[in-house]
Amino acid sequence: MTPYCSICWDINKVKLLDQRKLPREEIYLEITDYHEVIEAIRTLAIRGAPAIGVAAAMGAALGALGLKTEDPQEFAGRFDHICREIAAARPTAVNLFWALDRVQGLVQAHAGEPVGLLKERLVAEAQAMLKEDETINRKMAQAGQAVIREGMRVITHCNTGALATGAYGTALGVLRAAWEAGKRFSVWVDETRPLLQGARLTTWELGKIGIPYTLIPDGAAAALMAKGLVDLAIVGADRIAANGDTANKIGTYGVAVMAHYHGIPFYVAAPLSTFDFSIPDGSHIPVEERSGAEITHLWGQPVAPAGAQALNLAFDVTPSDLIAGIITEGGVARPPYASSLKALRKG
Amino acid sequence: MTPYCSICWDINKVKLLDQRKLPREEIYLEITDYHEVIEAIRTLAIRGAPAIGVAAAMGAALGALGLKTEDPQEFAGRFDHICREIAAARPTAVNLFWALDRVQGLVQAHAGEPVGLLKERLVAEAQAMLKEDETINRKMAQAGQAVIREGMRVITHCNTGALATGAYGTALGVLRAAWEAGKRFSVWVDETRPLLQGARLTTWELGKIGIPYTLIPDGAAAALMAKGLVDLAIVGADRIAANGDTANKIGTYGVAVMAHYHGIPFYVAAPLSTFDFSIPDGSHIPVEERSGAEITHLWGQPVAPAGAQALNLAFDVTPSDLIAGIITEGGVARPPYASSLKALRKG
Repeated sequence: MTPYCSICWDINKVKLLDQRKLPREEIYLEITDYHEVIEAIRTLAIRGAPAIGVAAAMGAALGALGLKTEDPQEFAGRFDHICREIAAARPTAVNLFWALDRVQGLVQAHAGEPVGLLKERLVAEAQAMLKEDETINRKMAQAGQAVIREGMRVITHCNTGALATGAYGTALGVLRAAWEAGKRFSVWVDETRPLLQGARLTTWELGKIGIPYTLIPDGAAAALMAKGLVDLAIVGADRIAANGDTANKIGTYGVAVMAHYHGIPFYVAAPLSTFDFSIPDGSHIPVEERSGAEITHLWGQPVAPAGAQALNLAFDVTPSDLIAGIITEGGVARPPYASSLKALRKG
Repeated sequence: MTPYCSICWDINKVKLLDQRKLPREEIYLEITDYHEVIEAIRTLAIRGAPAIGVAAAMGAALGALGLKTEDPQEFAGRFDHICREIAAARPTAVNLFWALDRVQGLVQAHAGEPVGLLKERLVAEAQAMLKEDETINRKMAQAGQAVIREGMRVITHCNTGALATGAYGTALGVLRAAWEAGKRFSVWVDETRPLLQGARLTTWELGKIGIPYTLIPDGAAAALMAKGLVDLAIVGADRIAANGDTANKIGTYGVAVMAHYHGIPFYVAAPLSTFDFSIPDGSHIPVEERSGAEITHLWGQPVAPAGAQALNLAFDVTPSDLIAGIITEGGVARPPYASSLKALRKG
């Protein structure tokens, strides 16, 4: 169906589409060393919270395969160390920690089993998580596609398609399901500075599905809203607190404020693995600060004067009072989120 | 004082700093043909509403010098034609039309005088307009610098310094005057996509003055405001309607909405030549649409898929109800603008 995949397991290798090169080149990296998975996550060869979760599990499986011991206890200790290394790749998307908790839990649940069997379990688990992610995305998309109506002009920020997930997509998955259900609409794509995931990736994915889109600079969204050309905003998430506060790509909060000012509903689409019920609100979400060079340089060439100081916060936090609904595989949560998210978690 | 100039008259030539090449190269174009002035305005070798006004007057003077006739009436007719060509260079900044009206008015006021004398008058007028622009900017800066207080974190969008004017600057001129008055503060510089006038030009100018700044993607402004790290916003203008509605670089309106949401005062600084009292409100301001390639390509290389559709509105309009004050050479206008601007115009 989708003629590309962000990540897959191929015998004893991880294959992943190098998203730094898109849309100009479609190059798959073939990785056998988990350090290279960490590097791929860090440098955004693979990005998007759900995809990072799958990559972490596959990286952990690769790391496990490389452990030269037959002692289950030593294996478990060294595997934990690998997971801690992978966990340090990026701080904000909680799916990374969720995935590592899950594979570490698997090893704990089968403590003492022969190392060969544990390795097989980890490889199978990582593959299962990829498959599950697609299933979850499709459920989420079905749960959410009712919010997209015929003729709408939808705005989205960053990339939330099959590239950002195991397959299908979160916010873009909702749009895809609506499109596949026969609804016709168009999308304003925020280019999403500094790394242009909107310009490079979302356009590429919408083009493959066939959904009409128009690319805009992030700063143009407000003007389009003022002109009455935007009916709905939908984005993904990197971490959602227990009260619904949502961390997502820098610029998302601005879209939410502008949507609020113009009376436009603002939706978030994310799997339950993106929720962090251990934190009460968004103030507890660690926001990654990346190199200023991502702002001061383009294609490796400087756009700002030498030595220009730049602040590169990778994410911002949108308070839940600006969010009309949070679309998950368990249904669409509505305000008040403290109770609706609790119900989703249990259900 | 300022170790560079955006534009000046040098015997029978216009010299202008090619802003497309900044900050990497400081190259002055030497122009003797007014068609090249039009091209420089169109391609943003020179930009910024006040600078465009001066460039238009100098372009008209160059055009006049090139007219091979001694008949005053023929001269006047052909000069009008040249002015109409220059007027078509860009549609939004009203300073362009204001400057051309002024030089056309000069020719009309001296109808019948020898052509040689008319040419001298036009060259002198263009030079006077450059000088006046600096005087006006300095008055505006003095009128406005009280809004900048010690320790403030100020945000600005696009470029409004000496580069955008004859000299000194509008919004950046206000900051410069505050700095020269001994106040210490810092500036968040919106990079200002698509053409990165903030990243390329404002950083360069603030660096030369010595004002500390931090460059950010346009989408990061809201997050900084939410964190309480922004105390005031100040921008320039390309055209201001009689009710205070202000057209400025795309993205400005978003800054204004976000400032409003966070209770941060939002100021506009512009000379009276930027006001268009012939239109009641911003809905009458024509907004230039530029090539989508300015969004889909960087350094001439594509960032989006081949054939990606992009919308490149060069400006947006900020309604006056979001503006705390409009700083001019005649003082700071405050709401309600219908009356305060009328008073400024008369005064």
